Amino acid sequence: MGTYAKMRPEELKREYCYMQKNFSDLQARGLKLNMARGKPGREQLDLVSDLLGVLATPEDCVCDGIDVRNYGELTGLPAAKRLFAELLGCRPEQCIVGGNASLQLMYDTIAKAYTHGRVGSVRPWAQEKTIKWLCPAPGYDRHFKISESFGMEMITVPMLATGPDMELVERLVQDPDVRGMWCVPKYSNPDGIIYSDETIDRIAALKPAAPDFTLMWDNAYCVHEFDGAFVPFRDMLSLCADHGNADMVFEFASTSKITMPGAGVSVVACSETNVAWLKKLMAVQTISFDKVNQLRHVRYLQDKDHTLTLMRRHAAILKPKFDCVTNTLQQQVGSLGIATWNKPKGGYFVSVYTSPGLAKRTLELCGQAGVVMTPAGATYPYGVDPQDSNIRIAPSLPPVQELEDAMEIFCTCLKLAALEQLLQK
Amino acid sequence: MGTYAKMRPEELKREYCYMQKNFSDLQARGLKLNMARGKPGREQLDLVSDLLGVLATPEDCVCDGIDVRNYGELTGLPAAKRLFAELLGCRPEQCIVGGNASLQLMYDTIAKAYTHGRVGSVRPWAQEKTIKWLCPAPGYDRHFKISESFGMEMITVPMLATGPDMELVERLVQDPDVRGMWCVPKYSNPDGIIYSDETIDRIAALKPAAPDFTLMWDNAYCVHEFDGAFVPFRDMLSLCADHGNADMVFEFASTSKITMPGAGVSVVACSETNVAWLKKLMAVQTISFDKVNQLRHVRYLQDKDHTLTLMRRHAAILKPKFDCVTNTLQQQVGSLGIATWNKPKGGYFVSVYTSPGLAKRTLELCGQAGVVMTPAGATYPYGVDPQDSNIRIAPSLPPVQELEDAMEIFCTCLKLAALEQLLQK
Repeated sequence: MGTYAKMRPEELKREYCYMQKNFSDLQARGLKLNMARGKPGREQLDLVSDLLGVLATPEDCVCDGIDVRNYGELTGLPAAKRLFAELLGCRPEQCIVGGNASLQLMYDTIAKAYTHGRVGSVRPWAQEKTIKWLCPAPGYDRHFKISESFGMEMITVPMLATGPDMELVERLVQDPDVRGMWCVPKYSNPDGIIYSDETIDRIAALKPAAPDFTLMWDNAYCVHEFDGAFVPFRDMLSLCADHGNADMVFEFASTSKITMPGAGVSVVACSETNVAWLKKLMAVQTISFDKVNQLRHVRYLQDKDHTLTLMRRHAAILKPKFDCVTNTLQQQVGSLGIATWNKPKGGYFVSVYTSPGLAKRTLELCGQAGVVMTPAGATYPYGVDPQDSNIRIAPSLPPVQELEDAMEIFCTCLKLAALEQLLQK
Repeated sequence: MGTYAKMRPEELKREYCYMQKNFSDLQARGLKLNMARGKPGREQLDLVSDLLGVLATPEDCVCDGIDVRNYGELTGLPAAKRLFAELLGCRPEQCIVGGNASLQLMYDTIAKAYTHGRVGSVRPWAQEKTIKWLCPAPGYDRHFKISESFGMEMITVPMLATGPDMELVERLVQDPDVRGMWCVPKYSNPDGIIYSDETIDRIAALKPAAPDFTLMWDNAYCVHEFDGAFVPFRDMLSLCADHGNADMVFEFASTSKITMPGAGVSVVACSETNVAWLKKLMAVQTISFDKVNQLRHVRYLQDKDHTLTLMRRHAAILKPKFDCVTNTLQQQVGSLGIATWNKPKGGYFVSVYTSPGLAKRTLELCGQAGVVMTPAGATYPYGVDPQDSNIRIAPSLPPVQELEDAMEIFCTCLKLAALEQLLQK
């Protein structure tokens, strides 16, 4: 079959009727499938459940002379800092190991900038008239929600195959109201892009007008290959420091997609000046994070090598799911000229670009057939995709068989949406 | 021996020389003892370490049909809400079960009022010129640190035997700039006072001028008797609602001193309107709290009855420590007229009131002899005790034998400080 655009009206109508019939049949199956979020599936949870039994006795709970069952060690267990420092390629003293959610560390970093001001801030951001923020898009909806919640003025920066459009970024940071930028440098959410070395160098070398410009470097998928070997990455803290930007960058990571999504351990890595800033403010907020869980993770993950071995076992579960998505897309809509998509080797998403104006309608139809996806537009600031084109598919949660059903429904809905549009013209 | 105040100068000098000798001897022992914080001791940690093994297999991790190992359930595991609701006497839908620290829930509640405004706020508190806060004192230093960190104007309210001085509180809340108050209603930190029913009723019935007056009801020691039977307490949420103040109160509690101090579970209980407010803002901050640890606690603590049984085992460990403190005080300084102290039946502290002007000097001397205590003044706003009198003793961490040494040192230092003062007159 050729592209829809080249079909004659009668052919389109015939195809439309056929797809409507397909859609009704699929709807009648009464499925309930969820591909909305990057949630690991049951098999992945089972894979890591030995974590539960790692600490069993009081004696197990002592590490570096610290009884992890008691209060103390605000910035985290030293052994946990060493583990994350090895994973991220930075130094342990640059790490603060937190609770179960790196999102909370990100939110809190920004909240503290608002209430107390950052290192280098003239005043707390809450007292500034305007805080502008660079949002490479499509991007992670939860990042944008944080910016929106604080009333930031979000500026969309297009994502290129190499990462954010750096010419635009370099120009925009000359505005002193531009205070920061969200980045997912490896397997970006949702495109699965690894920022090129040049992009990373240019980000590290930025000369922002704002003295407290804040680079939110969310390395969420730093060891999350599902296809092929581990792709090394450079230490952004060193790179920024080399360019005189030591205090510009906060790097975030967690074990949410290494061990258990709701019960992992998070980290923020930053300059020692920023560690001191965070520590001072965190000391008011909490006594210490859950060091028992930190030690569980240290004992279970051991080191980078051992962690990468575990990630290969996750990969073996994830790859067939991603293959299912991209293969079905290729078979069903590959030749129709109504969508393109990426084929990532890591991360948790497949990013589909439909012809303009089809994303919302496609997902509306999916919903009617029992398939819940990330809402269209969610990958853009304020939830508005100017092209109404990007759809984020999260294939990790359903088993492959359900995924096949879900993708059949998705492709049918996409075709139906495209045909509706063409027939209205 | 009679009171120091009645001694003649020669007697005082003799006693002073004797105490100096004692002090030198104690100093020479080179002890290192820490009574600074309400940290449970090793025996208490061992008591609860079966908690570690409660969840062992994937099957263990399902509760109410929820796999606790995955993302989701932002406001907490339903079973955990039921447990805390039973402990606090409120309803499960009024509970948000959080991470390991109720302090973080308190901080975040106030931080969100600053950045986003409370239910009923005219604007975010960060945009108000003045935020005043009522601080019953002596009180919990970490409460005051939160207020101080946000730049609140703290107003000291004296603690009476029945709780905060309510006449003063009722007058002060007529000022619309007064936005809230810290309370530890049961076994108040550090005095160990249980607020009287009348005090609690008057607090619930307050008519503050501020529409967003915020009662921070830190029920940290709600089941923490170490001497005698469990003392029931009334549900502050209902009481406030009965007086038309449903949205005024946020109640906090945690298992920090029920299970493991750094690895417990916390809760905030509030009106459903406030739950909705918190939930909306928390949804931006995190995906979910650590439900694995929540389920561990549900399975381990089971219910209120079972929790109270565990608390009696804690009590058996704690009571000899508190007895050691109060008995030593009685023996060593009981008749000297230089200090009084409370004799609580629960909580984590003994609150000593020295003659005015002795607290700092006493603790300075303690430090020189190797005993670290909560800094003098810490129990007052801005760390300033106007009388320089209150000293918080936290006897839970050291074994009884070390505690005996520490109390000997403490009493010696107190006597020395008193004698110095009398001899200078």
